Amino acid sequence: MDGTLGELGETAVLARIFPRLPASSAQLVGPGDDAAVLAAPDGRFVVTTDTMIHGPDFRLAWSSFEDLGWKAAATNLSDVAAMGAVPTALVVALAVPATASVLDLERLADGFRLACEALAPACGVVGGDLSVSDTLTIAVTAFGDLEGRAPVLRSGARAGDVVALSGTLGAAAAGLRALFERATDPAGEPDAELATALRSSHPGLLDTQLRPVPPIADGRLAALAGATAMLDVSDGLGLDARRIASASRAAIDLDPSALGADPALALSGGEDHGLLATFPAGTELPGGFRAIGRVVAGDGVLVDGVPYDARGGWDPYDDWNGGRG
Amino acid sequence: MDGTLGELGETAVLARIFPRLPASSAQLVGPGDDAAVLAAPDGRFVVTTDTMIHGPDFRLAWSSFEDLGWKAAATNLSDVAAMGAVPTALVVALAVPATASVLDLERLADGFRLACEALAPACGVVGGDLSVSDTLTIAVTAFGDLEGRAPVLRSGARAGDVVALSGTLGAAAAGLRALFERATDPAGEPDAELATALRSSHPGLLDTQLRPVPPIADGRLAALAGATAMLDVSDGLGLDARRIASASRAAIDLDPSALGADPALALSGGEDHGLLATFPAGTELPGGFRAIGRVVAGDGVLVDGVPYDARGGWDPYDDWNGGRG
Repeated sequence: MDGTLGELGETAVLARIFPRLPASSAQLVGPGDDAAVLAAPDGRFVVTTDTMIHGPDFRLAWSSFEDLGWKAAATNLSDVAAMGAVPTALVVALAVPATASVLDLERLADGFRLACEALAPACGVVGGDLSVSDTLTIAVTAFGDLEGRAPVLRSGARAGDVVALSGTLGAAAAGLRALFERATDPAGEPDAELATALRSSHPGLLDTQLRPVPPIADGRLAALAGATAMLDVSDGLGLDARRIASASRAAIDLDPSALGADPALALSGGEDHGLLATFPAGTELPGGFRAIGRVVAGDGVLVDGVPYDARGGWDPYDDWNGGRG
Repeated sequence: MDGTLGELGETAVLARIFPRLPASSAQLVGPGDDAAVLAAPDGRFVVTTDTMIHGPDFRLAWSSFEDLGWKAAATNLSDVAAMGAVPTALVVALAVPATASVLDLERLADGFRLACEALAPACGVVGGDLSVSDTLTIAVTAFGDLEGRAPVLRSGARAGDVVALSGTLGAAAAGLRALFERATDPAGEPDAELATALRSSHPGLLDTQLRPVPPIADGRLAALAGATAMLDVSDGLGLDARRIASASRAAIDLDPSALGADPALALSGGEDHGLLATFPAGTELPGGFRAIGRVVAGDGVLVDGVPYDARGGWDPYDDWNGGRG
């Protein structure tokens, strides 16, 4: 049966979704009571929350429901990893139009499961909330285990440290640009057929934007290797490097030769969800980390010694035109 | 300065909101990094999430922003209390129209602070997310500490137990009914002036609906007194008592004389957020709990031995007419 949420009602829809959700190895009490109970073996837990909203954050002409579940999981897992923690569980507050199909919600659940299986196998969905809303909204709260280590904050970088990145730079922004340029109709509205064609003719071009694969396991590896500071690069390398510099009262000098073929895009493009970390000089960089600069005395972000002040990333407060599609 | 979110931007708005938010005594790392870190002293934590959405869950003509913050906090705290836990922290994912005023968001933060101060003084807001959306959406995730005790589930009621309630029955539904009957314009749309007049002429009539005061501390007291099952009465006593009965494979027989002047309203009215608990016979009932029935062999809910099968509570899937106001 593939009715709408309004036709089937909450209880029937949840019965369809629950079996598709990933299990958490930290779950002591799962869905079905007033609250879940999770293990926090070292007496602490990491928590972060991030929301995806139809319009500013995604277009249904471009993203499948499976993509949306995947991306909502992946972006939250990345914030947990950026503390040096191992993701343990997610709770998902979903607000969907009453006209949404239960098949769409099943695909959304599949996206959460596939992302957890690929990126954080011990992590699962332990609870949530299903509401009706005119605006499809996916609010995820994610938890992590520090395994007895100190959290890796943004404030620990010291002059002399190596600046290293794991993940892509500018790929998500390039994908978004391609969608706006090549998957919109003459009126500028997102077009599903054009997006599907673009996705099959250029495999990989849209993946980081629509279905990102952040290096979740590298968060723990960075902490074990002695990372002094770390964050999830969600708003563009320029802006996010400035956040570490500011919190650490130091400057970050980036090596332009490490920024790829399009350094401007690498610096300004948001949503890559790589991990940017600093390590004491001489550290053998773990996992997928590669050196892209160093921490120096001063403030702000430099590229080869020259201050970098351009605005970076996608800002829905300024950039969203109010459209959906 | 009282600009809109769109004019001020996220950073400036957060700087205005943060100082108004309540502090959590469990906070090890607070807002400003990729994630927060919270203490979980007994190696576990309770987590629940609940969302309030403009339209199905509230009308801006009836609720002030301070009311909304209060209610969003109170309803989530109640789910934590219903596990027998002490609330420790909240994270708040807020999605608001770009035209929202920063003054409105300050009032929302005030509501969270006032509710925590009044209901759970150790609890505070440790993180969140601020997004733009056409639909004002308040998604709260709440945490609690079991202090080494087993969680009080819905499944532990046994024949012979006393059924007890702390809190109101039907008061929230009576308030909602009064709003629809006496605070709407001739076209049936919510009217702010009529609501204000009704609130001042009939103090208390609307409070449980707009600014509920659930008996949060009684959750811990019930657990200490040996409660065998407990839940937050959010969907009406009839429906929520059935949930305990079903999970416990027993029946709940309610005493009509304990249901007040309007037993039908007491059974069907949702959103009271009282605590319904079962205790072994002979238990001295703690805090504000009063006996309202007993657990017997069988299944479902009875009133003085007669099966009660009416639908209870407000169901946005069936009851929301799509309006906002």
